[in-house]
Amino acid sequence: MTASDRWLLPDGVEDILPPLASQIDALRRDILDQFQRWGYELVIPPLIEYLESLLTGTGNDLALQTFKLTDQLTGRMMGVRADMTPQAARIDAHTLRRPGVTRLCYGGHVLNTRPQHLLTGRTPIQAGCELFGSASPHADREVIQLMLSTVRRAGVADMHLDLAHVAIYQELIAASDFDRDTESAIFDAMRRQSLPELDELLGDCPNGTPGACLRQLARLSGGPEVLGKARTLLQDGPEKALKALDELTRMADGIAASCPDVALGFDFCELRGYNYHTGLVFAVYVPGHGQAVAQGGRYDAIGGDFGRARPATGFSADVRALVALGARPSIEKSGAIWAPVSDDPALARLVDELRETDTVIQALPDDSGDPESRGCDRQLVQNDGQWGIEPIES
Amino acid sequence: MTASDRWLLPDGVEDILPPLASQIDALRRDILDQFQRWGYELVIPPLIEYLESLLTGTGNDLALQTFKLTDQLTGRMMGVRADMTPQAARIDAHTLRRPGVTRLCYGGHVLNTRPQHLLTGRTPIQAGCELFGSASPHADREVIQLMLSTVRRAGVADMHLDLAHVAIYQELIAASDFDRDTESAIFDAMRRQSLPELDELLGDCPNGTPGACLRQLARLSGGPEVLGKARTLLQDGPEKALKALDELTRMADGIAASCPDVALGFDFCELRGYNYHTGLVFAVYVPGHGQAVAQGGRYDAIGGDFGRARPATGFSADVRALVALGARPSIEKSGAIWAPVSDDPALARLVDELRETDTVIQALPDDSGDPESRGCDRQLVQNDGQWGIEPIES
Repeated sequence: MTASDRWLLPDGVEDILPPLASQIDALRRDILDQFQRWGYELVIPPLIEYLESLLTGTGNDLALQTFKLTDQLTGRMMGVRADMTPQAARIDAHTLRRPGVTRLCYGGHVLNTRPQHLLTGRTPIQAGCELFGSASPHADREVIQLMLSTVRRAGVADMHLDLAHVAIYQELIAASDFDRDTESAIFDAMRRQSLPELDELLGDCPNGTPGACLRQLARLSGGPEVLGKARTLLQDGPEKALKALDELTRMADGIAASCPDVALGFDFCELRGYNYHTGLVFAVYVPGHGQAVAQGGRYDAIGGDFGRARPATGFSADVRALVALGARPSIEKSGAIWAPVSDDPALARLVDELRETDTVIQALPDDSGDPESRGCDRQLVQNDGQWGIEPIES
Repeated sequence: MTASDRWLLPDGVEDILPPLASQIDALRRDILDQFQRWGYELVIPPLIEYLESLLTGTGNDLALQTFKLTDQLTGRMMGVRADMTPQAARIDAHTLRRPGVTRLCYGGHVLNTRPQHLLTGRTPIQAGCELFGSASPHADREVIQLMLSTVRRAGVADMHLDLAHVAIYQELIAASDFDRDTESAIFDAMRRQSLPELDELLGDCPNGTPGACLRQLARLSGGPEVLGKARTLLQDGPEKALKALDELTRMADGIAASCPDVALGFDFCELRGYNYHTGLVFAVYVPGHGQAVAQGGRYDAIGGDFGRARPATGFSADVRALVALGARPSIEKSGAIWAPVSDDPALARLVDELRETDTVIQALPDDSGDPESRGCDRQLVQNDGQWGIEPIES
């Protein structure tokens, strides 16, 4: 190993340097403060858990995204969290066990075995909200509005909201009679939105069967105009699939009325990135970026796996990806004050006082740098035994 | 595996719930803001790195504390950071490569294979500052003062500062002629402060030899009165050890003058928790807690391992441990406003406005909870078609 190899970071892993790090931390604070003003209480779930608790009810995709570790104290397998939503669900169902609605939020690093998002690689900073204990569409609507508001805080004005409903796919599959292997191949092709594979798998299904309907729905996406086409396709389909389409339509109407500036899009077999979702799912896209910048949905099953069935809905976003969009105005630097090397206790007291509100950078005897390169626009100068602040002339 | 096993968290790993999570996040913000007012720029080092870069120059103890992972993309071994100081040193030496002094700070989760601190277990939230490019005692003093100020921000008034100097031990060992095995056994016993083992290992050393001196110094600790005794013991010892004692004494005088409220203590062979340090080391203790709540010191070697020799000093603390001390006044809850279920757009607009500064919790149709249990002291009520805020009578 050469010295320069030693400095290489793994793919999808990077140092976040000044001033970007401060911008990310500022947006994280801003987002968490907003979550709390909507009544979401902050939790800090652990970075590691036993695999059984980390992956319960979350599906195979999240398992593949999770780094595994051996606990030296017990020999049991642990995982580093790849998604904090299931952790919040465990906290709600097991740790807090409160009656009625519980709203939780979080913001911290997660770790993925492979890069999920071009903007952030394998170590996203996930911030999100989860609402437990309400099966009402009002809960989903609150979460969607908070999600839109969060992306707005990142400075993004031009947003595209995609709505989908996992139950449409699930009900069509349940109404068909594919064997397990075919079913799993369809699921896989659907997640990857591979239309040629779906044609091959579903091309023989006679018109009007659930299989043919799936194949046609997978091709159907677009603005509100596609809702009618989906209804036509599903009219003889399973009742619950039609009910899911109704939910989707009502939510779209509600969002269109309250957020007329947000462009709406619809998918009917969207499964990408939804590992444990059971109902309405939603994602925010920004022009020029193919990946969602925030996404979430309803997941009513995880709580049950932890022994307490709780309806749940929520969303999360990657703070680093939101900052990488570059839409947030950069923070105005307020300048700093340079303090010369001196053992005068009066200077030390003044520096202490100034640091209550100002940035003061202390010169050091062996520092070759100059005050301006450190962002200083003022300096402390002694005149007639008195220390005072003077501007730095450049 | 039963359902209740699934909920168990590993030893030394726990959920941080409301309101503790908010208290920890608030102190983290407060500490990072202070670091930045002292001129330390925020960096966010990655959660994982290749083992070679993560552990370069840091010693065996940190290697044992580091969880190892296999990178699925390359098959190389990675580690989850157990300490962010070496990461900051790598960023200074390799990524930033600035001339003159560079000040960096950070605050985030680290992961330890075994619990290091009773108050925080295996997932501390490490916040710290590192000052690169100055070998001056002024730099160490700045770091010590910032460390004391940080612990004060956690509400702790009664602080005990322990000072030590790694070079005293190193120079005495270098001046002796122990074989490698004995040397490593002495190092090990010294780290664990096992006096019986040191007696066994060093008991045969004639008076006046470095070995006898080590044995006597290991027993010597206390307030400023022990500095003279250490000087007597070291007077015929290696010149550099005496020079280190001089540095220690001068630093103690400086701190005593500027922070007369801080009790000073001295150790001459303190090695616990100092994995890569080369000079003056320092730790803050709080009465009633046997473990340091903040610690740091000079480490001039890590940068060199990364190809750029840079003098360095810094400190870090565990934000969670600082909050667990319970000395910080709890945050005054400002109350919240309850919004009833309604589709009135006028209410939605009012809620949006109020949320700019206030906390507003939205009622949901199927929520069995009451406003008071959510911390609401006011509610939105419609009178004559107008929405207004009214107190909640309990």
